[in-house]
Amino acid sequence: MNIDEFVESSLGTWRSQRSAHHMAFHHFEEVTSEIEISLLEHGDERVIKLCKTNKVDPHLATSPFFMKWEGESDWDEDEVLAGSTVLVPVPDLDNPSKGRLLREQGYAETVPAIGYYHLIEDGSFVLTTQYERASAEEKIWFATPNLRLRVSLIKTGDGKGVTTASFSSEIRALNLD
Amino acid sequence: MNIDEFVESSLGTWRSQRSAHHMAFHHFEEVTSEIEISLLEHGDERVIKLCKTNKVDPHLATSPFFMKWEGESDWDEDEVLAGSTVLVPVPDLDNPSKGRLLREQGYAETVPAIGYYHLIEDGSFVLTTQYERASAEEKIWFATPNLRLRVSLIKTGDGKGVTTASFSSEIRALNLD
Repeated sequence: MNIDEFVESSLGTWRSQRSAHHMAFHHFEEVTSEIEISLLEHGDERVIKLCKTNKVDPHLATSPFFMKWEGESDWDEDEVLAGSTVLVPVPDLDNPSKGRLLREQGYAETVPAIGYYHLIEDGSFVLTTQYERASAEEKIWFATPNLRLRVSLIKTGDGKGVTTASFSSEIRALNLD
Repeated sequence: MNIDEFVESSLGTWRSQRSAHHMAFHHFEEVTSEIEISLLEHGDERVIKLCKTNKVDPHLATSPFFMKWEGESDWDEDEVLAGSTVLVPVPDLDNPSKGRLLREQGYAETVPAIGYYHLIEDGSFVLTTQYERASAEEKIWFATPNLRLRVSLIKTGDGKGVTTASFSSEIRALNLD
């Protein structure tokens, strides 16, 4: 699977169940959300802007997409789990199974972030993102065309410890139009 | 990582948090358990017996081990989540990163089972087990030497659908002896 196929398989609306395991205090958190992923035009001004911010030639970008989510957690009912972001894959020129993923806004922080992705042998998309005081490692794969799975680890700044491990199962919502 | 290294990395006592996502009714189940994994002697009578039952020459077995677990679920408090089993890896002669895993007793059913494993590029151990009316696919990997992660899928008999997806994070318990 290449990055274009991976993005194409991800397009649509997904109903997600996410379980977060908070390591230090053995706590379970349950989040239910709806995620919508749609393709963007190469010429979309948000794509051009994100490329420029990161000093990337927009012609090197492929399959830019928009992601929107809205959900609720059993942990903090007052917390608003809603947001959206623009994501732009930029494959490496010498090895298209690897590359950068530019992001308008991270999942874990509200600042722009560059992740590094790698598509591995078993069809998984592995993404590593370094933040100021932590790093995130995500592995996303398809169990079936309509079931996307995701394991996310939030690591300590030095990358040696894991503070949170979470698992999402995302079921494709039927299009009833 | 080969199968002997994988088993060796798994030895010890682990405190596990498991979240099961039941697909059909979007239910979350939370299980907390303690898992103990210990190496068995090649000559252990339980290993010999399991090999004989499966018509496998015991000399082809490697790193046989014993697994014991005890836990509780938030779903059915009366359910006893305790058990133990003997597991015997039998690597393929032509490709030692693949092989059979003989099991005295399955996780999902109380009958003996043969699983097929494959150690993949990123260090994950992937195990597929066919039962009478369902199949199970497990992926186990180490985030750190003291954090083992496991994603298990229970699939329908035809292998096309997933009924339950679950995620375990297993933290090595410190040995205070």
